[in-house]
Amino acid sequence: MAHLSDIEIAQAKKLQHIKKIAEKLGVAEDNLEMYGKYKAKLPLDLIDEKKADENNLVLVTALTPTPAGEGKTTVSIGLTEGLNKIGKQATVVLREPSLGPVFGIKGGAAGGGHSQVVPMEDINLHFTGDFNAVEKANNLLSALIDNNIQSKVNNLNIDPRTILWKRVIDMNDRSLRNITIGLGGTANGVPREDGFNITPASEVMAILCMATDFDNLKERLGNIFIGFTYDKKPIFAKDLKAENAMAILLKDAIKPNLVQTLEENPAIIHGGPFANIAQGTNTIIATKMGLSLSDYVVTEAGFGADLGAEKFLNIKSAFAKLNPKCVVLVATIRALRHHGGAAKEEYNTPSVERVEEGFKNLEKHIENIRKYNIEPVVAINSFISDSDDEVNFVIEKCKSLGVHAVLSEGWAKGGDGTQELAKAVVDVVENKATQYKPLYDWKSPITEKIETIAKEVYGAVNVEYSKKAQLNLRRIDRLGFNDFAVCMAKTQKSFSDNDKLIGRPEGFTVTVREIEIAAGAQFVIPILGKMMRMPGLPSVPASEGMTIDNNGVISGLS
Amino acid sequence: MAHLSDIEIAQAKKLQHIKKIAEKLGVAEDNLEMYGKYKAKLPLDLIDEKKADENNLVLVTALTPTPAGEGKTTVSIGLTEGLNKIGKQATVVLREPSLGPVFGIKGGAAGGGHSQVVPMEDINLHFTGDFNAVEKANNLLSALIDNNIQSKVNNLNIDPRTILWKRVIDMNDRSLRNITIGLGGTANGVPREDGFNITPASEVMAILCMATDFDNLKERLGNIFIGFTYDKKPIFAKDLKAENAMAILLKDAIKPNLVQTLEENPAIIHGGPFANIAQGTNTIIATKMGLSLSDYVVTEAGFGADLGAEKFLNIKSAFAKLNPKCVVLVATIRALRHHGGAAKEEYNTPSVERVEEGFKNLEKHIENIRKYNIEPVVAINSFISDSDDEVNFVIEKCKSLGVHAVLSEGWAKGGDGTQELAKAVVDVVENKATQYKPLYDWKSPITEKIETIAKEVYGAVNVEYSKKAQLNLRRIDRLGFNDFAVCMAKTQKSFSDNDKLIGRPEGFTVTVREIEIAAGAQFVIPILGKMMRMPGLPSVPASEGMTIDNNGVISGLS
Repeated sequence: MAHLSDIEIAQAKKLQHIKKIAEKLGVAEDNLEMYGKYKAKLPLDLIDEKKADENNLVLVTALTPTPAGEGKTTVSIGLTEGLNKIGKQATVVLREPSLGPVFGIKGGAAGGGHSQVVPMEDINLHFTGDFNAVEKANNLLSALIDNNIQSKVNNLNIDPRTILWKRVIDMNDRSLRNITIGLGGTANGVPREDGFNITPASEVMAILCMATDFDNLKERLGNIFIGFTYDKKPIFAKDLKAENAMAILLKDAIKPNLVQTLEENPAIIHGGPFANIAQGTNTIIATKMGLSLSDYVVTEAGFGADLGAEKFLNIKSAFAKLNPKCVVLVATIRALRHHGGAAKEEYNTPSVERVEEGFKNLEKHIENIRKYNIEPVVAINSFISDSDDEVNFVIEKCKSLGVHAVLSEGWAKGGDGTQELAKAVVDVVENKATQYKPLYDWKSPITEKIETIAKEVYGAVNVEYSKKAQLNLRRIDRLGFNDFAVCMAKTQKSFSDNDKLIGRPEGFTVTVREIEIAAGAQFVIPILGKMMRMPGLPSVPASEGMTIDNNGVISGLS
Repeated sequence: MAHLSDIEIAQAKKLQHIKKIAEKLGVAEDNLEMYGKYKAKLPLDLIDEKKADENNLVLVTALTPTPAGEGKTTVSIGLTEGLNKIGKQATVVLREPSLGPVFGIKGGAAGGGHSQVVPMEDINLHFTGDFNAVEKANNLLSALIDNNIQSKVNNLNIDPRTILWKRVIDMNDRSLRNITIGLGGTANGVPREDGFNITPASEVMAILCMATDFDNLKERLGNIFIGFTYDKKPIFAKDLKAENAMAILLKDAIKPNLVQTLEENPAIIHGGPFANIAQGTNTIIATKMGLSLSDYVVTEAGFGADLGAEKFLNIKSAFAKLNPKCVVLVATIRALRHHGGAAKEEYNTPSVERVEEGFKNLEKHIENIRKYNIEPVVAINSFISDSDDEVNFVIEKCKSLGVHAVLSEGWAKGGDGTQELAKAVVDVVENKATQYKPLYDWKSPITEKIETIAKEVYGAVNVEYSKKAQLNLRRIDRLGFNDFAVCMAKTQKSFSDNDKLIGRPEGFTVTVREIEIAAGAQFVIPILGKMMRMPGLPSVPASEGMTIDNNGVISGLS
């Protein structure tokens, strides 16, 4: 069989009308807001808090990833197919992909191979317009800020040098990282430095994903911290009376999107915040929607478990009172070789020794998950370059730790390749699930929360604060934001804040360089390294290889 | 009865499911791509060129307007209701409103009073995402340009100082008019001047509205002229291999949107180019779609007949081989008083003398329409401040010119207030329609085309060209763009290029200051005055008065 690309597999699939998928969730057609025949928005009144509490939430995360990623989305979709195959009613709940990377290197994010959500073109492009709505709400606030600075009426005396709020665009566009605006004379605004972040980095996106309902969304939008007046008073979005208009722009974006997997199981895709400077997981509303309508919800969180799972558990689950009953740790033999010291050109070369050494990384993640009172299952995302010896080593080593490790072949076989994984997950959910507990209390001091994460999750021995971070801590205290959660911004390549420390580093100190504030999202963001908020395009952008014919059939999208 | 706002009237209406509206057009539900229950996209294969040629196209335009506008959209919708009331199967085909002005002063553009298209909130907000798609396609090209300048691979040697292509955002945001980008060192692009226009000013919007099918769209996108290399070679979008990716972003935006009027008649709303620097009317595809599916299509073009109708007839109709059978000239007593010399504070003060003097403006527009071999009907858009004497004067004066003038009361009464107007239109279509002819041949020289418009339509005695315009003419010649149409950019407040010359100015000279190129849209744009491409917000933005409750009910939107 010739190798098919993701888009070819997706296009070969005859899709079910979305009303048929909704039927599987017990949702009548009349409740759907259809976007074409294969996408629909679900109204918020379908959320049933009691069911959301009772049904089974499974979080998919990963060991510390290589730059290619270890396939969490593919495993999440595959596992959902597998659960349905073994008779469980399961829905996968995912983030929406950003448009920017589609034209860059990375491509979209709708799974891969025979574990995809469809229609993949739509999901990877504008989808139902949620990212655009976030972008417009973000940029309306920017326009209102600059308009207030320009205006003589109701002028709030904002000091343009203190404005932390940036504009956003869902495009990989490095030239917009640092700009000066308001040039060209008195009619054209007040000159100041600004910049564009990519839309997933907008605090509006983080807020949309933390909101529990529309009123909560509005309140959070009003609480966005913008900067200071010339006489040092803090300015919030509500001071510009921005929150209603911003919420109006988000009136449809707040509703979760229903699509389908290649095996016609329900997929809810909603929200897409960055995993570095934000929480990196779908909306609370989408997760609760999934749990209200199905026995099992499989969801994922960005990067490795030290980042995505930590934030999912300490921020999202703690705030929304979710109770994840199993965590699936995705591992690849390739990534284990990497953590065992393999150079990039050796990633595809079997070596049980490398894998054994690299297993220390996975073992630390396993220990970490158990700190939340949750039992992990390890999913070995299968690659053709894996040797049986390596796979067997991982399975046996996990067994010695009391953890079920299973080969996951969703990419190659869809649900037929994930039934064993599904059974392992069900075993944990039915026999080993307890009440999860977060690692820290939101009410404890900011520095204590940071230290808990650094020491318990990362394995650091110490946390240092730069001069700037210390000033930021005082500002947070002065503004009364001590009760916020902590959303760590750290490299995904290491447990530490040093890219180069692979495996399970020990004895290290992490340095908090600065601490940002996302007052609407209700977290502070300790920055432990340089965080990219606006990617660039590569020398040969992916856009150059894309085509679309007169009938609208696309090729070259990945 | 208490006075209701537009949004209150719209919200009080119980909407029909869009499939019921489609039924009136003979379109089966299965052909619809629904966006919720009240909006749908129509597939392009419903266009029937033969029917589009046979059915009856009615263009609504206006006399030279006051800043408040004379209600072309309201009359277009009202007339459509009236036509259906008298037994004709009629559809209104309109432009999509821009989001920017919704939060500024002007508000949206979905008609008014009892002549509206609904759901007005959706139409005025993101609607079906078309504007966002245009914005993204525009800005992807910008990102590709700056990426090419940055890149060492495939570098086209573009001279950043010559780039004419701007970024766009659908927001009133004056601070983005003039910016510098690419600051912050070698990793962050090459510094250059840039700016954002509002999305309706994007050439991508003009192109979408001129495209006849998907291949034509792609070809036009590839032909976008960007600037020059350091060795003075012209650079086009196709040189950056941008046209397929841009077209992919527009794959849904190319399909017309179906909604409904307050009286449940079909409304097709699609595309929204500026009326000053672009053609100011809906897509060719939407107009042909309307004509394929209904006996009568009522459509409109921006500003007065010297701008909107001129471009509709000489650019859109000439290219797409449309044959408008009647032109409705919207007049208000208020605007006639203005052209008769009334000061702003006298606009609502009855004066037959003012109206008589102001009628000269309307008379010139009547003469102009007849130059295209089309008979006009005058619709007097009724206001409570109109006196019977004034209205009767206009009716009698028109009668003396052989023109039927009718009071249009669509704002107050919907279709009940426009039946007489509808009958007058049907009389022209059935008894007086001929083959329209454009005023100029696209193949004639650019200066000849400009002079034809200036002398025949505006009434100028002479056209002068600035030094810059003369250089621009030579560039157009060098690039081989002489066969393009001419899209005049002139103040809408006067027949001349001088705002202050009301009524029917004579003996004046117009000055072409510069001539821009829209090579994808296939027109050149002679600039006869300062053209706004990015509005600002007012001191108290409309956004401050908007609210939305926890059930999503909006107030304060207009």
